[in-house]
Amino acid sequence: MPRVTFLPNDKTVEVPAGTLLHEAAIKAGVENLHLPCGGEGTCGQCLVEVVGAQPASAGLNLVMACQTKVREDMVIRLPEDRDVAMQVVGDSHFLLSEEILPSQADLCPLYRIEQLTVPPASIEEHYSDWLRLARALGGNLTAGLPVLRKLAAALREQEGAVTVALDETGSATRVLDIWPGRIDVRPLGLAIDIGTTTVAVQLVDLRDGQVIETATTYNQQIRRGVDVITRIDYARTPERLEELRDLILNTLNGLIGELTRGAGVAAGEIQAAFVAGNTIMIHLLLGLPPRHIREAPYVPTVNPVPPLEAREVGLAIHPSAMVHFASGVGSYVGGDITAGLLTTDFLTEKEQVFLYLDIGTNGEIVVGNADWMVGCACSAGPAFEGSGIKCGMRATQGAIEYVQIGEGGSSLRYKVIGGGKPAGICGSGLICLLGELFVRRVVDQAGRFNPDQAAGRVVESEHGRAFILESGAGTASGEDLLITEADIENLIRTKAAIYAACDLILENVGLPWDAISRVYIAGGFGRYIQVADAVLIGMLPDIAHKKFRYIGNAALTGAYIALLSRTHRQRLSDLASRMTYLDLSSDPHYMDSYVKAMFLPHTDMAHFPGVARKMAQ
Amino acid sequence: MPRVTFLPNDKTVEVPAGTLLHEAAIKAGVENLHLPCGGEGTCGQCLVEVVGAQPASAGLNLVMACQTKVREDMVIRLPEDRDVAMQVVGDSHFLLSEEILPSQADLCPLYRIEQLTVPPASIEEHYSDWLRLARALGGNLTAGLPVLRKLAAALREQEGAVTVALDETGSATRVLDIWPGRIDVRPLGLAIDIGTTTVAVQLVDLRDGQVIETATTYNQQIRRGVDVITRIDYARTPERLEELRDLILNTLNGLIGELTRGAGVAAGEIQAAFVAGNTIMIHLLLGLPPRHIREAPYVPTVNPVPPLEAREVGLAIHPSAMVHFASGVGSYVGGDITAGLLTTDFLTEKEQVFLYLDIGTNGEIVVGNADWMVGCACSAGPAFEGSGIKCGMRATQGAIEYVQIGEGGSSLRYKVIGGGKPAGICGSGLICLLGELFVRRVVDQAGRFNPDQAAGRVVESEHGRAFILESGAGTASGEDLLITEADIENLIRTKAAIYAACDLILENVGLPWDAISRVYIAGGFGRYIQVADAVLIGMLPDIAHKKFRYIGNAALTGAYIALLSRTHRQRLSDLASRMTYLDLSSDPHYMDSYVKAMFLPHTDMAHFPGVARKMAQ
Repeated sequence: MPRVTFLPNDKTVEVPAGTLLHEAAIKAGVENLHLPCGGEGTCGQCLVEVVGAQPASAGLNLVMACQTKVREDMVIRLPEDRDVAMQVVGDSHFLLSEEILPSQADLCPLYRIEQLTVPPASIEEHYSDWLRLARALGGNLTAGLPVLRKLAAALREQEGAVTVALDETGSATRVLDIWPGRIDVRPLGLAIDIGTTTVAVQLVDLRDGQVIETATTYNQQIRRGVDVITRIDYARTPERLEELRDLILNTLNGLIGELTRGAGVAAGEIQAAFVAGNTIMIHLLLGLPPRHIREAPYVPTVNPVPPLEAREVGLAIHPSAMVHFASGVGSYVGGDITAGLLTTDFLTEKEQVFLYLDIGTNGEIVVGNADWMVGCACSAGPAFEGSGIKCGMRATQGAIEYVQIGEGGSSLRYKVIGGGKPAGICGSGLICLLGELFVRRVVDQAGRFNPDQAAGRVVESEHGRAFILESGAGTASGEDLLITEADIENLIRTKAAIYAACDLILENVGLPWDAISRVYIAGGFGRYIQVADAVLIGMLPDIAHKKFRYIGNAALTGAYIALLSRTHRQRLSDLASRMTYLDLSSDPHYMDSYVKAMFLPHTDMAHFPGVARKMAQ
Repeated sequence: MPRVTFLPNDKTVEVPAGTLLHEAAIKAGVENLHLPCGGEGTCGQCLVEVVGAQPASAGLNLVMACQTKVREDMVIRLPEDRDVAMQVVGDSHFLLSEEILPSQADLCPLYRIEQLTVPPASIEEHYSDWLRLARALGGNLTAGLPVLRKLAAALREQEGAVTVALDETGSATRVLDIWPGRIDVRPLGLAIDIGTTTVAVQLVDLRDGQVIETATTYNQQIRRGVDVITRIDYARTPERLEELRDLILNTLNGLIGELTRGAGVAAGEIQAAFVAGNTIMIHLLLGLPPRHIREAPYVPTVNPVPPLEAREVGLAIHPSAMVHFASGVGSYVGGDITAGLLTTDFLTEKEQVFLYLDIGTNGEIVVGNADWMVGCACSAGPAFEGSGIKCGMRATQGAIEYVQIGEGGSSLRYKVIGGGKPAGICGSGLICLLGELFVRRVVDQAGRFNPDQAAGRVVESEHGRAFILESGAGTASGEDLLITEADIENLIRTKAAIYAACDLILENVGLPWDAISRVYIAGGFGRYIQVADAVLIGMLPDIAHKKFRYIGNAALTGAYIALLSRTHRQRLSDLASRMTYLDLSSDPHYMDSYVKAMFLPHTDMAHFPGVARKMAQ
């Protein structure tokens, strides 16, 4: 079999002829070879150098690892690791009001601790230990064998005084654990949000809802595709599906390890978890082939997901802990959205109408109130995550997050996350930049540069016409930081997808924009958007800015609430079954609406009266 | 550490000084060193020879392996293997009437197979695969992850036609498996009876109740104690408890292997089991410390036993198969008795009163009918199993099972199981022999020999006064086959325990013997008893012989019925909770009743009018 050696770490593996280079790299334990396009050969992010080979042309002999098959012995030089440490933003819940959380009286978590005294048996009342426990708890009980094995000793050590952990989510109460004596045990649960890009896990004390610790990181699956579609395509073989499953489990179990170490608890003490995630992430977590989601009629395999044991799911907590999942609505409106809605007024308010917007690589939109709800999804693409934009990057250290351009493009100021020289520009920076370029008329409504207005900042670069944000002397890499016309087209496509979806869903329910009392913006990305900028470019509707509310990582907050409250778990599954799903891809008006939104801010300025007034000044 | 070598197989192990010899033998993999008394040093069955040591007296240096600690290097010669292959009696169900079995219309087994077609999804009806399956089955579903993983492909391969295995015993229907297409799958279940001495497992087709195969063998735990009390005592350390658990699991899994090989099925195809067993056997199977059963107030740890997964229990069938257990009544009236009652008229008849007798090393007795039931247990001891009787043996090849003595003891005839020279005498043979000795006045009412009546067969042996059943020339071992006065005392104690318990339970419910319409005799042992003999010695009451009904291994038959019928499972748990348990050990009258029964047939001949008439002839 041919041997492949990977430099600079000099790892060598033997693989059968015909193996793809990136598969050989996985086998060699190489972790920094990413396939953002899912191995389709379209993004060029997996270029590697074939060392010692005769180059086809002058320069390096670069090949795409996802497309190149191993035929003979090879030496491969890997690119330098481009991963950046994620700047974890303190993830306390971003709540509209404390009232959204279940009150202490309402708490009915996934499991609870009870201290009680089980009366001893007597010759007359010769009930078994198990039956006396059931009578003392007043219900029908079940348990696994490890609990039964501890039972006799626990009941006798402190004259019948015991502490039990009880799961009351099913029709019979399940005894999860038992200890002798009336002791102080913290019931621990996890709220989990699995996003396409980021994953958050929160360790919660189920007695009072105290958040012990939160940890967030990137979804390691990003290496195999930046968005859900590329990951679905990547997962087409059982081996690749298993690989994606391993990547998300590694991500989650890494976070769980971080949390348990930080809190000084054993993973086995965590006996419940509530997971919110989009439908594709949940399928990949469970190792369910996701391809049917992409094939007509676009249905998921499992929704709602029945509760499963942690052992089966692969979560490194108590093996018998039950893992519950937020119910989704359709293939593209998942449990992350329904969980997020728990943090809003949607579920309690019948008079007003709300709009819920979760903007990530996919945009999900829900309109309605306690009486009715309609949801839809659009493929926004990863531009706002920094992908597909030449100098784009995620909102981490070194990213430009804010830009201000002076009259006529003469002056330019920006703000860098963490300070120092800029390394790139993140989503909020891009929205801000595009708004500024449009207001200063450096780009026209179609997104084309007008060099006259740019004070020499618009140049012809090797990537076509571009706007120089910072010259090489002032950047971290020493290369010019620029935005190209292609980048702008990409951004306009993204914002148009979102606006067109909002527009169409309102048209479908027969309501004008004015009818919306409040717009909730969820998702980690939304945090940094300046609403004024987003309206300016036509991403968000031109309504009173005070109607917008940013609600943070609502999916995580929703999972946290569901972990704690039976009422909210019930509301969540009710709303998932009540919501009407609107499939935009099959709606003939969507393309019209989308094309109209491919202008800054829109072809029909009547949609954006505020922007029209501003531009007329 | 000292080294111990076991001959003849030359196995050597190193063990810490102070280890008991029998523990060293376990470590060396020696399997034929049995401790019928549970390692208490009372039975002498574990004598081994210390080779090369200076004998304390002339002859071999024999020590008890259960009492001797290893202090230095030793060479041990083991006795020859005394195990006899069990002669498995064809174990078709021994039924009073076919009506006792659930009818085909009543069948509601622990799981069933259903073939159905799940309508495809459409753009309008975009329910997930899981939800469409749930709607097609018309209920609330759960499943484990392996089933969810097969779901999408199964639903698509044959245009929605699928075959599912469903467990409907809980509040939600559990999907155990799914296959594409409408295919013919046999749902397979196990009926299991775990006796102190013998274990029986039956492979059943749950569609129609067809018994595919039955396998029976000895409980391997016999090596560590012949009766439940010695095993409870033996299990006092966690290691020994685990050892007993391993022994019964080995026994069961050996039988399961035999059944699956015989039937040509994979163990993983078996997805349900119903277990009947006495309370101590169930505790040992589950690894639950049984000592509390022997300590006041004598309560079991678990009863009823919640359903457990086969994986947890350790049964080598489908790991997620649910194992159900027959509910017991008290520590000494277990699930074997309640299951056995399913095979009688107890549950349906309200006019007549019945007596149920299960005679083994423990005797369990139930009196009552559909309206009321009282149960109790007595320690019969292992005499009828052949243990504690000099020439006693189990009812296998070579055992005398029937004896006839001529007038004045002049002639003697006997019947050997399997023919040939006798090797010993089994329980039914002992009862028959004792009856004959009594009728022929070779023994008096107190069980003492009257040499005048024995035609020279009563001799003074090294074991005291004894009756020669066969001289050495006519036996398999070449040694005289005899029964001693000590043996007879042992037998009388056994029969007295049983009769006294029956007598007392009737006294407690205020009924005379005449009030009993029928006496059911259950248990493998009962099969060979001649009722006339048993009445003669005062073990069974002196009532019309036609009232006795032998019902075979009723516990196995009951487990079989419960495997198949929800109605009967419900009846079983109802009767377990309704039955009143009478604790004889705390009843001051029991000792009186027992002492009165320590005569042949009884001190009060008014209890045995028929025997009195016969003896007066």
